[in-house]
Amino acid sequence: MKQFTSVHDVEDIEALVREALVLKQHPYAHESLGKHKTLGLIFLNPSLRTRLSTQKAAQSLGMNVMVMNMGQEGWALETQDGAIMNGTTVEHIKDAAAVMGEYCDILGMRSFPKLQNVEDDYSEEILQKFIQYANVPFVSLESATRHPLQSLADLITITEHAPKGRRPKVVLTWAPHVKALPQAVPNSFAEWMCAADVDFVITHPEGYELDPQFTNGATITYNQQEALNGADFIYVKNWSTYQPYGQVLTQDASWMLTNQHLANTNNAKVMHCLPVRRNVELSDEILDGPNSLVVQTAANREFAAQAVLRLLLEGLK
Amino acid sequence: MKQFTSVHDVEDIEALVREALVLKQHPYAHESLGKHKTLGLIFLNPSLRTRLSTQKAAQSLGMNVMVMNMGQEGWALETQDGAIMNGTTVEHIKDAAAVMGEYCDILGMRSFPKLQNVEDDYSEEILQKFIQYANVPFVSLESATRHPLQSLADLITITEHAPKGRRPKVVLTWAPHVKALPQAVPNSFAEWMCAADVDFVITHPEGYELDPQFTNGATITYNQQEALNGADFIYVKNWSTYQPYGQVLTQDASWMLTNQHLANTNNAKVMHCLPVRRNVELSDEILDGPNSLVVQTAANREFAAQAVLRLLLEGLK
Amino acid sequence: MKQFTSVHDVEDIEALVREALVLKQHPYAHESLGKHKTLGLIFLNPSLRTRLSTQKAAQSLGMNVMVMNMGQEGWALETQDGAIMNGTTVEHIKDAAAVMGEYCDILGMRSFPKLQNVEDDYSEEILQKFIQYANVPFVSLESATRHPLQSLADLITITEHAPKGRRPKVVLTWAPHVKALPQAVPNSFAEWMCAADVDFVITHPEGYELDPQFTNGATITYNQQEALNGADFIYVKNWSTYQPYGQVLTQDASWMLTNQHLANTNNAKVMHCLPVRRNVELSDEILDGPNSLVVQTAANREFAAQAVLRLLLEGLK
Repeated sequence: MKQFTSVHDVEDIEALVREALVLKQHPYAHESLGKHKTLGLIFLNPSLRTRLSTQKAAQSLGMNVMVMNMGQEGWALETQDGAIMNGTTVEHIKDAAAVMGEYCDILGMRSFPKLQNVEDDYSEEILQKFIQYANVPFVSLESATRHPLQSLADLITITEHAPKGRRPKVVLTWAPHVKALPQAVPNSFAEWMCAADVDFVITHPEGYELDPQFTNGATITYNQQEALNGADFIYVKNWSTYQPYGQVLTQDASWMLTNQHLANTNNAKVMHCLPVRRNVELSDEILDGPNSLVVQTAANREFAAQAVLRLLLEGLK
Repeated sequence: MKQFTSVHDVEDIEALVREALVLKQHPYAHESLGKHKTLGLIFLNPSLRTRLSTQKAAQSLGMNVMVMNMGQEGWALETQDGAIMNGTTVEHIKDAAAVMGEYCDILGMRSFPKLQNVEDDYSEEILQKFIQYANVPFVSLESATRHPLQSLADLITITEHAPKGRRPKVVLTWAPHVKALPQAVPNSFAEWMCAADVDFVITHPEGYELDPQFTNGATITYNQQEALNGADFIYVKNWSTYQPYGQVLTQDASWMLTNQHLANTNNAKVMHCLPVRRNVELSDEILDGPNSLVVQTAANREFAAQAVLRLLLEGLK
Repeated sequence: MKQFTSVHDVEDIEALVREALVLKQHPYAHESLGKHKTLGLIFLNPSLRTRLSTQKAAQSLGMNVMVMNMGQEGWALETQDGAIMNGTTVEHIKDAAAVMGEYCDILGMRSFPKLQNVEDDYSEEILQKFIQYANVPFVSLESATRHPLQSLADLITITEHAPKGRRPKVVLTWAPHVKALPQAVPNSFAEWMCAADVDFVITHPEGYELDPQFTNGATITYNQQEALNGADFIYVKNWSTYQPYGQVLTQDASWMLTNQHLANTNNAKVMHCLPVRRNVELSDEILDGPNSLVVQTAANREFAAQAVLRLLLEGLK
């Protein structure tokens, strides 16, 4: 594997999940694989889980890790080709990426969308230019439209807790939030679930339709109650609108997941990528109760990253 | 040992000091003890000595270290139970701590007091919640009311320089400062000295009484000159008032330690935890003269941290 | 070697370049040399290339590395001797340096000039005090007046691409910029080129004369076209004036290097230390064309740092 930016970069997602679960049992089984290899983690935006889990995963594989928080430690990057750089950007992404590619064997980058112009964000220009100019194997640490390490950890967690002998029903439900958030996590979760061996339903208020390229194959409904009926897993997440872009249409509190919402489910396990706004997106009673898998999912971020880095390292040989 | 948050967590402080002094001679004697173990250092506030000395100590024990500066790289944490998180906090400490506990074998955290409400700060709510939810062995990197790694380094330094054959006289003296500072360092120093084999005197202007839970057993006087009489060690530190909380009552320059203050001491060694406001808390002549132990004390921070981490690592077995 | 702050610290620059080129072929040949040795990298100003390349170089030599971004993670340092520190500086450089010297076997520091007072900046007071009080071997990560790791990487790159059998002609040309920049890179490049086996010419608009202590031995002309005639290497860089200090006298776009400027050169290779303002200092056509060595030069930063660190480590024995 040369890059991990979406489910489409993965040849066999079931094998990748199995590999992650083996690494969870034997995290140091490949600790010499990364010897003399350097991973550079570039954050244009803040990170807690992604930074720590990826750093830990790389160290378990014997890699050196260099973390660069560009927002604080670096500088504003220019992304437009042909720009006359007489403004506030101090370096073109072409040059910064090419240089970082010289020092690192594998690079990861996080870059959030600006939520102002849908074409700009959905073109994934920053991600694509960075990959092109860095010219080394690449792992996305969340981009404008996807968060594949999160989605892989989600699928690992669902696999661990799935009912035996039948396909689980997985529901992605929109939840309220105080801010306009990207669609990266729901987009990515949707495309991984559509590729996985699950029954997948998406529910959200009218107007919150995701870009169909990510949801093709899913059942979509505005009726949350109907969607949750018989669910084995409920994935809770806020997002802002895709069309028109980046809007908050409602903060309807009835969409906040509470124990009441679990009534007609199959004693559903509840997931969220974190950070979560407690008592806005999900109630305390769920997050602190027996149905929550949020911490277990975050823990699986480490093994998702380790399985991906292992494939990227194998690809270096 | 499962946590190091105060002197009360230490079974035998003399043995811990001896262990640190042995590590100072042989810092790599246990370099395989920390193999495959990860230390996470979480800073909610800035740090120089604590960050570098603890990082170095962990590396000498063979640990991996991940540093997270939450103020800059992370986000504002919610600490109130049951909060409806529709404001500026982006993650509850419950969730952040639980996740970091999944990635790390041992965690350390620094969290300063806000100096606004004494009950809030002295409840050590942030520290206690972090420990509870992280659910892994823990080392305080300074909390609202204590700085135990500093106090251990102080005691190591006093032990190294103590007069032979008799108990040393140790004086903690208040010093002026331009800002309202926490009581963590003097509280912590006081409770370690009260537990150690020394004669311990505290002196400060009227109104600067520390919380008696930390000073029980110490002689306390407003007369600095009397306190310093015959001193072997003088520990200089500013703090703001405990009751009423967080006030600056005086900046009386006569409390600034100068060579003149050493006249009736036993050629006292002078200590300070650093950073120090030169010519406000202590004069240049002392800091740059032969009686200063400030750099030696800072150097001992490394071995204080190493001795503590060693006990925490042994506790993992 | 005990310190690397300028070309004057290097006994044999040709041998150092050869050593770097050997390390480029065999980066792990000395990976046990740095065992149990800690490198501290202190940044008072932002850094991308210097931080990553030096960190990588140290890791390849088996060192532990601790990075401290003082601007964000630390605090404002006092540099004036005898200061009464009742203002905004929280620690004197004397104390901070002495403490960091206790935790680290080798220290590096970056400190930019303020461009306000030429005597202050050109005294290199911060650098010299830091070295004095840290009291361990030191590597400059760019100071007020010099950037020697950059200059060494420049000379390595020129050596790699030099014509066989004759001295290359190397031209340093001023280029426009939107901001007032330090003279550290051109000063340093000039003094290395004056010491190297090259024909060296400097060209800039009237008023941009560098401090003669750095340019002694160079041919200096205001005529860029004449300077570029027959050049093998063109080093492009903006700087603000030395006398009167820190001014921007012109932004004359005719000084921006374009392919047209290469017409009468010896198919000159073009260099820049990066970050570069595209289409202000250099045109896209040059940076993206076959004559550019900017990425190759940045890549050589790693081996410049590794060669220097190796000498500093050998000096510890």
